[in-house]
Amino acid sequence: MRLVIQKYGGTSVGSIEKIKAIAKKVADRKKEGADIIVVVSAMAGETDKLVNMAHQISEIPERREFDMLLSTGERVTIALLTMALQSLGCDAISLTGRQSGIITNSSYTRAKIKYITGKRIRDALNQGKVVVVAGFQGIDEHENVTTLGRGGSDTTAVAIAATLKAEVCEIYTDVEGVFTTDPNIVPHARKLDKISYEEMLEMASLGAKVLHSRCLEFGKKYKIPILVKSTFGGGEGTLVTDEVNMEESVVIGIAYNKNQAKITIAGVPDRPGIAAQIFGKVSQADIVVDMIIQNVSEGGLTDVSFTVQKSDAKKTFLLMKELVPEIGAEDVKIDENITKISIIGAGMQGQSGIATTMFSSLAKENINIMMISTSEIKISCVIDTKYTELAVRVLHDAFGLEKPKG
Amino acid sequence: MRLVIQKYGGTSVGSIEKIKAIAKKVADRKKEGADIIVVVSAMAGETDKLVNMAHQISEIPERREFDMLLSTGERVTIALLTMALQSLGCDAISLTGRQSGIITNSSYTRAKIKYITGKRIRDALNQGKVVVVAGFQGIDEHENVTTLGRGGSDTTAVAIAATLKAEVCEIYTDVEGVFTTDPNIVPHARKLDKISYEEMLEMASLGAKVLHSRCLEFGKKYKIPILVKSTFGGGEGTLVTDEVNMEESVVIGIAYNKNQAKITIAGVPDRPGIAAQIFGKVSQADIVVDMIIQNVSEGGLTDVSFTVQKSDAKKTFLLMKELVPEIGAEDVKIDENITKISIIGAGMQGQSGIATTMFSSLAKENINIMMISTSEIKISCVIDTKYTELAVRVLHDAFGLEKPKG
Repeated sequence: MRLVIQKYGGTSVGSIEKIKAIAKKVADRKKEGADIIVVVSAMAGETDKLVNMAHQISEIPERREFDMLLSTGERVTIALLTMALQSLGCDAISLTGRQSGIITNSSYTRAKIKYITGKRIRDALNQGKVVVVAGFQGIDEHENVTTLGRGGSDTTAVAIAATLKAEVCEIYTDVEGVFTTDPNIVPHARKLDKISYEEMLEMASLGAKVLHSRCLEFGKKYKIPILVKSTFGGGEGTLVTDEVNMEESVVIGIAYNKNQAKITIAGVPDRPGIAAQIFGKVSQADIVVDMIIQNVSEGGLTDVSFTVQKSDAKKTFLLMKELVPEIGAEDVKIDENITKISIIGAGMQGQSGIATTMFSSLAKENINIMMISTSEIKISCVIDTKYTELAVRVLHDAFGLEKPKG
Repeated sequence: MRLVIQKYGGTSVGSIEKIKAIAKKVADRKKEGADIIVVVSAMAGETDKLVNMAHQISEIPERREFDMLLSTGERVTIALLTMALQSLGCDAISLTGRQSGIITNSSYTRAKIKYITGKRIRDALNQGKVVVVAGFQGIDEHENVTTLGRGGSDTTAVAIAATLKAEVCEIYTDVEGVFTTDPNIVPHARKLDKISYEEMLEMASLGAKVLHSRCLEFGKKYKIPILVKSTFGGGEGTLVTDEVNMEESVVIGIAYNKNQAKITIAGVPDRPGIAAQIFGKVSQADIVVDMIIQNVSEGGLTDVSFTVQKSDAKKTFLLMKELVPEIGAEDVKIDENITKISIIGAGMQGQSGIATTMFSSLAKENINIMMISTSEIKISCVIDTKYTELAVRVLHDAFGLEKPKG
């Protein structure tokens, strides 16, 4: 029989009424003739409540105990949703991360799934039950409870889909799908019917919060089609797949990320090993660098700029301040008012003129480009944050995203 | 090293402040040089909250899912208490029922402990850690989560004490210990220093809510001294042990239970098998009968009276109403205004005059005795509920319980 994985996030299961409504949806789908595994998150607000209790006890709670605490949230949801299914006459069983055989490494609060045995999931499916699995959690090889960190429940869903070779993994959320850009900025932004894993990865990492990159990596690796759909609204959603978007435009979406800061070290002596010194220091502090630009050397001195997450910016700035005298540089500056704006499209490869259209469209509005980086499927520019909305609208128009190509 | 088990109930861990206070107590005790295992319940109110959510979904939630839901409560407490210990610099680890190796049968919501492996508990103790165990829960042999029902956390504590051969199992509660009777009724009721398992069992089953009979059965079987103590108050508490109370009075306590109802079937034909018919019907409905009285037969007809829990009374009454024509009896009556009042003492055996003192003391106050039952260590009378407090005071005085004997 057709095997479908469905994942519902915290907002979708945020109240008893919503849990009942989801049970109805699942039971109806089951009647249509599908094997169903439902992966759920903690009820909206529950995780925050638990985190808040932990922080009343300790500013930095030990991470093993933190996971023990947080893992209770999803367990409440699986029990309640299973009861709701049963009360509709739909045979169902709840399984925790451990009972589902989700084995992770021991990196508490951000564990990675090593493998899924899935024995009890298979047994329950064979008995005709709907299986309700706790997302976001697993156990390590010593049977300690772990949680998967951000995007954890999505990752659980796609990893189970891969293990059980499901036909599709449906991720239910509060938006209708993936849009060409943020509809809050561009009201005529268009919902995409299909998008490739690579494109969706770029959209996700650049701020489209619909899907986390971890679950996309899994989907891409194991070729699991991921359908992003609205939980209670209608619509067909967006299918993330490895099919090429033959009928779509070269550029399929505009993403932006206001959550970065730019660090610039001025007057760096241009000698071998200097970049390794700078970025070694940053990575030792467990800070992830995104874009890096090194200007052309003038008189043996160069400027090095790079971007980091805003939450790491102050720490990075202080580290670089220490480093400046050590490496004989002149100064370090920080700019938190930046936005990274990107155009994305798998069809961009080998197409001429795309970058030119982007740069000239921004120039026409007098928007200065501070940094540029390119990859096979995207071009990103760092601009002043105040121009974000204007830039998004201009680029959305420039690439004709309001209507599908063809 | 000395091994101590401590159990804290829901009220004792009912807030973050209380959890911190208990962490302090435990950490101090650890410093004095003891190996410590702490067993905890869900924070007060949490279980009710979960039950309430379940009942919003289903009047009779499936019991496996109910246990999955309820078991989250203790997990929250173990994580928070462990964090609190760690933040005091006290090395600690939380273990769920499963991680502690608490294996039960599959009777969800009232599972019985089959055995405890305790491997991870021992490992953690050997590493010098305080071990914080989730009470009230275990897993069955198929690794489903189970809960132990009423008195579950006390039972967990004593069962762990038995498995690990602890010196003592300390049960912390909101009273100072076990009293000769309810201090709300008799202000000069005296706290007992020691009490035997059998006596405590009678006190517990008759309404002294300090300890549940299940944990006492365990304690008795494995000879684990159980110390009942106030969580935040002072005092030495009461030690439940198998030592004989040489210095105590013959009668050590007065208990009462207002939670029963009396069913009387009048005019029952006095023929063999009639009692089996009556009580067979009751037990088939899973209703527990306490006292049974059959009056002397007059003209081939007899009256049969018995008591059941008040919550089962209506159901029992209706069952008996069905039965009356079947067995050719005359009528069935129900009396919910009864109290079972008992005098308890292991030294009672073979002592003459105890029963007489009880009956005559009640008679002197014109309190009518409706039913009597006796065992080796107690005598119970059923009286009209309105005389409860008077009867308790009269008997407390009659047996001189306000001061220790000797």
